[in-house]
Amino acid sequence: MSSVLIRGGTVVNADRAFRADVLCIDGKIAEVGDNLAAPAGAQVVDAGGQYVMPGGIDPHTHMQLPFMGTVTMDDFYSGTAAGLAGGTTTIIDFVIPSPKQPLMDAYRTWREWAEKSAADYSFHVAVTWWDESVHRDMGTLVQDEGVNSFKHFMAYKNAIMCDDETLVNSFKRALELGAMPTVHAENGELVYLLQADMKAKGILGPEGHPLSRPPAVEAEAAQRAIAIANVLNVPIYVVHVSCAESAEAIARARAAGQRVYGEVLAGHLTVDDSVYRNPDFAYAAGHVMSPPFRNKTNQDALWHGLQAGHLHTTATDHCTFCAAQKAAGKDDFSKIPNGCGGVEERLAVIWDEGVNTGRLTPSEFVAITSANAAKLFNIYPRKGCVVAGADADLVVWDPAGTKTLSVKTQKSLGDFNIFEGRTVTGVPSHTLSQGKVVYANGDLRAERGVGKYVKRPPFGPQFDALAKKTALHAPHPVSR
Amino acid sequence: MSSVLIRGGTVVNADRAFRADVLCIDGKIAEVGDNLAAPAGAQVVDAGGQYVMPGGIDPHTHMQLPFMGTVTMDDFYSGTAAGLAGGTTTIIDFVIPSPKQPLMDAYRTWREWAEKSAADYSFHVAVTWWDESVHRDMGTLVQDEGVNSFKHFMAYKNAIMCDDETLVNSFKRALELGAMPTVHAENGELVYLLQADMKAKGILGPEGHPLSRPPAVEAEAAQRAIAIANVLNVPIYVVHVSCAESAEAIARARAAGQRVYGEVLAGHLTVDDSVYRNPDFAYAAGHVMSPPFRNKTNQDALWHGLQAGHLHTTATDHCTFCAAQKAAGKDDFSKIPNGCGGVEERLAVIWDEGVNTGRLTPSEFVAITSANAAKLFNIYPRKGCVVAGADADLVVWDPAGTKTLSVKTQKSLGDFNIFEGRTVTGVPSHTLSQGKVVYANGDLRAERGVGKYVKRPPFGPQFDALAKKTALHAPHPVSR
Amino acid sequence: MSSVLIRGGTVVNADRAFRADVLCIDGKIAEVGDNLAAPAGAQVVDAGGQYVMPGGIDPHTHMQLPFMGTVTMDDFYSGTAAGLAGGTTTIIDFVIPSPKQPLMDAYRTWREWAEKSAADYSFHVAVTWWDESVHRDMGTLVQDEGVNSFKHFMAYKNAIMCDDETLVNSFKRALELGAMPTVHAENGELVYLLQADMKAKGILGPEGHPLSRPPAVEAEAAQRAIAIANVLNVPIYVVHVSCAESAEAIARARAAGQRVYGEVLAGHLTVDDSVYRNPDFAYAAGHVMSPPFRNKTNQDALWHGLQAGHLHTTATDHCTFCAAQKAAGKDDFSKIPNGCGGVEERLAVIWDEGVNTGRLTPSEFVAITSANAAKLFNIYPRKGCVVAGADADLVVWDPAGTKTLSVKTQKSLGDFNIFEGRTVTGVPSHTLSQGKVVYANGDLRAERGVGKYVKRPPFGPQFDALAKKTALHAPHPVSR
Amino acid sequence: MSSVLIRGGTVVNADRAFRADVLCIDGKIAEVGDNLAAPAGAQVVDAGGQYVMPGGIDPHTHMQLPFMGTVTMDDFYSGTAAGLAGGTTTIIDFVIPSPKQPLMDAYRTWREWAEKSAADYSFHVAVTWWDESVHRDMGTLVQDEGVNSFKHFMAYKNAIMCDDETLVNSFKRALELGAMPTVHAENGELVYLLQADMKAKGILGPEGHPLSRPPAVEAEAAQRAIAIANVLNVPIYVVHVSCAESAEAIARARAAGQRVYGEVLAGHLTVDDSVYRNPDFAYAAGHVMSPPFRNKTNQDALWHGLQAGHLHTTATDHCTFCAAQKAAGKDDFSKIPNGCGGVEERLAVIWDEGVNTGRLTPSEFVAITSANAAKLFNIYPRKGCVVAGADADLVVWDPAGTKTLSVKTQKSLGDFNIFEGRTVTGVPSHTLSQGKVVYANGDLRAERGVGKYVKRPPFGPQFDALAKKTALHAPHPVSR
Repeated sequence: MSSVLIRGGTVVNADRAFRADVLCIDGKIAEVGDNLAAPAGAQVVDAGGQYVMPGGIDPHTHMQLPFMGTVTMDDFYSGTAAGLAGGTTTIIDFVIPSPKQPLMDAYRTWREWAEKSAADYSFHVAVTWWDESVHRDMGTLVQDEGVNSFKHFMAYKNAIMCDDETLVNSFKRALELGAMPTVHAENGELVYLLQADMKAKGILGPEGHPLSRPPAVEAEAAQRAIAIANVLNVPIYVVHVSCAESAEAIARARAAGQRVYGEVLAGHLTVDDSVYRNPDFAYAAGHVMSPPFRNKTNQDALWHGLQAGHLHTTATDHCTFCAAQKAAGKDDFSKIPNGCGGVEERLAVIWDEGVNTGRLTPSEFVAITSANAAKLFNIYPRKGCVVAGADADLVVWDPAGTKTLSVKTQKSLGDFNIFEGRTVTGVPSHTLSQGKVVYANGDLRAERGVGKYVKRPPFGPQFDALAKKTALHAPHPVSR
Repeated sequence: MSSVLIRGGTVVNADRAFRADVLCIDGKIAEVGDNLAAPAGAQVVDAGGQYVMPGGIDPHTHMQLPFMGTVTMDDFYSGTAAGLAGGTTTIIDFVIPSPKQPLMDAYRTWREWAEKSAADYSFHVAVTWWDESVHRDMGTLVQDEGVNSFKHFMAYKNAIMCDDETLVNSFKRALELGAMPTVHAENGELVYLLQADMKAKGILGPEGHPLSRPPAVEAEAAQRAIAIANVLNVPIYVVHVSCAESAEAIARARAAGQRVYGEVLAGHLTVDDSVYRNPDFAYAAGHVMSPPFRNKTNQDALWHGLQAGHLHTTATDHCTFCAAQKAAGKDDFSKIPNGCGGVEERLAVIWDEGVNTGRLTPSEFVAITSANAAKLFNIYPRKGCVVAGADADLVVWDPAGTKTLSVKTQKSLGDFNIFEGRTVTGVPSHTLSQGKVVYANGDLRAERGVGKYVKRPPFGPQFDALAKKTALHAPHPVSR
Repeated sequence: MSSVLIRGGTVVNADRAFRADVLCIDGKIAEVGDNLAAPAGAQVVDAGGQYVMPGGIDPHTHMQLPFMGTVTMDDFYSGTAAGLAGGTTTIIDFVIPSPKQPLMDAYRTWREWAEKSAADYSFHVAVTWWDESVHRDMGTLVQDEGVNSFKHFMAYKNAIMCDDETLVNSFKRALELGAMPTVHAENGELVYLLQADMKAKGILGPEGHPLSRPPAVEAEAAQRAIAIANVLNVPIYVVHVSCAESAEAIARARAAGQRVYGEVLAGHLTVDDSVYRNPDFAYAAGHVMSPPFRNKTNQDALWHGLQAGHLHTTATDHCTFCAAQKAAGKDDFSKIPNGCGGVEERLAVIWDEGVNTGRLTPSEFVAITSANAAKLFNIYPRKGCVVAGADADLVVWDPAGTKTLSVKTQKSLGDFNIFEGRTVTGVPSHTLSQGKVVYANGDLRAERGVGKYVKRPPFGPQFDALAKKTALHAPHPVSR
Repeated sequence: MSSVLIRGGTVVNADRAFRADVLCIDGKIAEVGDNLAAPAGAQVVDAGGQYVMPGGIDPHTHMQLPFMGTVTMDDFYSGTAAGLAGGTTTIIDFVIPSPKQPLMDAYRTWREWAEKSAADYSFHVAVTWWDESVHRDMGTLVQDEGVNSFKHFMAYKNAIMCDDETLVNSFKRALELGAMPTVHAENGELVYLLQADMKAKGILGPEGHPLSRPPAVEAEAAQRAIAIANVLNVPIYVVHVSCAESAEAIARARAAGQRVYGEVLAGHLTVDDSVYRNPDFAYAAGHVMSPPFRNKTNQDALWHGLQAGHLHTTATDHCTFCAAQKAAGKDDFSKIPNGCGGVEERLAVIWDEGVNTGRLTPSEFVAITSANAAKLFNIYPRKGCVVAGADADLVVWDPAGTKTLSVKTQKSLGDFNIFEGRTVTGVPSHTLSQGKVVYANGDLRAERGVGKYVKRPPFGPQFDALAKKTALHAPHPVSR
């Protein structure tokens, strides 16, 4: 029996903050209460003056992503370990089948790759094409494999882009299965055209990247996906909302009673688009991801969305291409592989810019970094809540601790840090994963392969409501 | 020399109303002024107590539309004659090439059909597919044939529906040519799915028609087209806006400085969706058109759009399928040919519901029934304005006259009237086309074949502004 | 030691629903868990097939309200007892000083009146005038008396209406004290004018009531209060939001990052304005309250606001004037005393129209009927949550139970029921207050005087965030 | 007989631009047409390559404004002369009665001051207090004196600020008279509080000015005025809209069918709020006016409003306090007299930033600088249109001409220029007032005292529509 007692802290859950000790036994939270006694042999963590929060859930990562015969720098081990160093104890990564590749094949490949993980993980599965086998495999994934969400790329023409027919079919199937459809919202046709336009104008460098993916391109796709979901009466989750127009589209749909959810990346909240005009290619290219970083006005809109509650989760899209890989686009920005890191810095960056500025309360911070993702992907309160019975995935947060973020000190194996040089106040002092202290004051004790695959059951609470709504509003034929 | 003097009326233009006589000589307005003398032999029309307005322009009609080997009841002669009876002196009809049919072939066919017209006419040309020949023919049509607008159907999957790639290519080409892209905004993929859904639920009658084309389906497409136009910096005109959500999408884009224009049909302003649940198939099917009629809330939004100025023109989509043709969908609403009449009633219905209710001033009425269409399609002030030098296409409007609209008394050859039984106050007493009185107090004197094709030059004023905007905001490469 | 074990139910909290027993000892929840053993002597409530939820909190009631020398029918005893019968275990009533009356005097009066309560209660205190004593008394109320919210009437000209100067002073003081300002949002000047207008038009009956208080009158005041709060950086809570325009004003402010909260009444969600045109004066007058009931479009907007999260709490404004009192306005609608009941029916009506229709999940129901009010008024989780340590104020909810609501069967002493004849599915089977079963299957065992005054501490979590925001954005002088 | 022939230019009206000569005889436009012959003795102006537009109307100026025993630098002569130098041929100034001063007294005073004007002028009259005499004088002004608009200050507490009661009374009276109410929209109560706050924080310099008048303060008042107008069914005109929130409030109201109009100042379109933090007091104070200049985001919103058509006119609020007068606020920003110049630069600045950038077409430029003001204040087409019969107030515009704006070269007697150093492309080459060339290529020939008072008739076209609307929607009593 392994046990850890976290003593003297303030527990922060999404609904409230309160003074309590937390006792973890055998990977679970055994008790949350005042003045708990440490069992014999228990490790005691002093959380005096600190917050004890559910470990972060990053619902959007790409560890070990294949790219032209290579992979990104962080594999499932180093990537989840980096997460632990930053207080993130669960990731939801993506299985991305090639067009025509059977979903189950891709799924098994990714499951195998992920076995080396140091922290718990789960998978969204992308639907990149459509036929009867995809329909069937979606069923298998939901019913047998614990997948309750499917991803759809509305960008990347001539590659993994979904057309409307596939979107409609897949959303409909997801509803039937009680799974959440998610979308990468960018109009791939427009991106394609604008990329060609930029090149025709002689713009070949990374500055062409944001110019070929303006907010309108994202907002169009977000609105389209939301409209399709509305017509089909299926919930929808928009990943990496980066601009005001998309956030407004979500807010509008929600204000009409639709169940739409939005995710924001730490980078979009804090890094602006001036980076792309930096004369250093490596620097500019290091920031290339899609959607691109935006200006301050858009950043404000994202913060406001989190405050108002029409945006719900935060993530990173962690995907660490190295400089050599980025160099594939040296002469053509559209060939720069898309991706940036962040799994390690997300919590600190959001705390610093969100809580320290008065935008968010500590409870709201927990909601958007952990609890909401757990709820939406139906693993709450096993994850996302400091409560007896939950997984002992915890972060002890030192609001007075400071740190300067840098590629030099990061645990991630990536060779770039989009938060380079930023000094944050508020850092994890300890991270517990599966009831063990895996990070303590700079000392990372991640273990390869101990992370477990998290099955996520279908039909989260929102589906009950949707089912009733559908049944009640069913139209009837007119007698003639 | 033929001349007509309209004496004693109040001239109403879009910018103001004023007391003046109007003298027409040889098809043109020769003078507008006080106490004009009648030339020898001039016909004198007494307009005392009446308004003298530019004849209506209906920018959306389908005369003589082919359907399964037959055509709609109104050909170009009877349709334009019906328009004259109602005060409409110009129509803009549509050339609709079949997929793969060369645009020029379709254009020539429609031009030939239209030679029998009793009033002036012009054509939008639909882009229903894409290749290099379409690109070239668009150029020919604009530069040689006086076409300055192209139509795109976002609905009608497996028929004339444009995919995004075609939309993008065609919009881009239109911009280059100084022509306005227009869209029928409904998401054809969703319509297709919902039609199947309705049938699966046993809903086969006309009540299934609106259920398969809800506002969200229209709004999605409107937003998409607007977003594409925004990204390409091309003006865009959305035909038959029928619902609040589309009107709001237009208003939003305009409020961000985009040049977007909206058209509303007389039917959408005044007929509600309860008609589809009428137990009489012929009645319900008689109202089947797309987008379908909507509820009161949506009607209000359309009126508000016209009042506020984010909707600009009114039209009818006049397309008179007869009962026998409508019966093709007796057992399957999706097979009912889509179309309703209205070219004859538009002005009276809009005056009655718009001006008599205080929603619109007489000048605003002229703007939305005539002047705005003339401006947007660049034939102003030749059409759309009572001013010396303009075509003498005029309507003398009796604001006290009343009429009960009915299929029994209409001049249109259609066998159905969506305004059946409605008594309106405000009717044309006289219509002048090409300087001749062609309608006087119930007496229609339309002449077959006298209508002339109206060439519309490209590069209306808005293009100048857009060109400057594009040039000024052109991005530049970063030096690295 | 008194104990009750609720066995076999599904506990519903705002964050989730889960199968658990609930053990209550000595007025507190002692344990929530699986298969709990009943202590000796414990009363066991079988909750099989039922939900166990935190008792309702009604944050807006007027028990025992004085009116021209009489009072409303329900005093604090009968009113709180009626609440218990309906599953509501806490009310927050209002202390309303007359202009110039010292706040502390009014406060003591109301406290004394409330001693007869059968359930726990608390007080908002109205600020109806301003001078230094009001400023001081606000401090005393917050620091010594556990008041953390102040009410402002923007209507009722020549009576208790606040002008902008008072609003500004009071909001500023509230911020300083960590108390929430709340507003009754109607522009009293406009109401005054419209009442006179109606009378000038000969409209003297209750149909004049809604005509003199249209949505625009409410929305104006809501916007004004929100703007003032925004400028002062103080949170604000708008009571009884009744129309789309107010809800939109709140949503807009929230989407800009402002901390604005909205309350909705059960009546506004479910009763429409046709009641005022009923030819029976007593019926029409029985529905007179302010803001008045609205049409369906507005009701939808309120539901959507609760679903989207820009409206937060539900209440009743319970205020039971009897027919004789209402008759004061027999010949002049503006003299009809404003008020309707509902404390007893709120939960059932909202469950029936909210949960049974798929608009809300059971957890969302708990949020808007109990947990959110507890959080906003800073008594969470003592109230509003089924968790060990909380007050044992609980409702066992039978989702299959039905009931027809009627003045004939209600426990309230009012002589009118705005939900008359409505049959709901979903009713309380048992209510526990302070750990005792006070209502069981129709048997109400309310005890006079056992209800306790609930002190509410200032500086709820939102104030922490606001304080940081203010500090960070403080402007600085320019050196000249 | 005096005559001027403007030859070879492109006439630009609000509805279109066309090649034509313009002949002016005896102060009126005699003819607009091709190849007009010059009458004997006519002065000929060569407008080749230039635009001929209606002279600008500045509907918002304060010439010769009294201030603590002095007046602003520009009196009615120098101010109107400066306007002529810039192409503006008509001003609408303000009569501002002191509280309790009879309106007619103030009116007569201002009329006398204005007799020295070099160009035509008219007056809005401010309602700064209320009693029966004000009600009566409003009638006299409208019926006998040609005033059709009344101004209301919602700011300037303890001075000329209207409370809601006055607003309501005055708006109602204006409706009755067919006159347009206009508002200066800032919440005076909040300004008062924020001024005190700034001083309490030690902020005494001009940087405190914008901090005490943030956009929310303006938007609140705009919304309130619009709501009151909506409830009373009266049109409303919001002067100097300076921020996005106010523009949105107008757009929202218009989108609901309300007749709301917005005015924008040249300064708010082009000068940003960084000026207030300039360390030079004279520079910062020179920009002090209310509302203050705003940031870029707000400027964009104003341009968008003009483009979309929810903002209608442009003005200047020309009010030239000199450095010595501004120095009254040397130690307290709230004592700096509010006002800036611009009557001379408005057209050039708006052409340069509006037309040259592609935001506006030349016709749209004419609409917002001249025609719309003429229509809204019911002097169209006498003013605001190049048409036979109109006043010969014209500007010949050289789109290629350039000029560097500066206090050193301005004709205004003010000692500051908010556009200092800005080089514009597009300048007047000639201005005609009353049919005479009063400005030609830098040579200003303004004559003292020739300007005429312009009577403006009540009941512009919009009132007809409103009257119908009111009549149709009148409520009726219920029979009981």
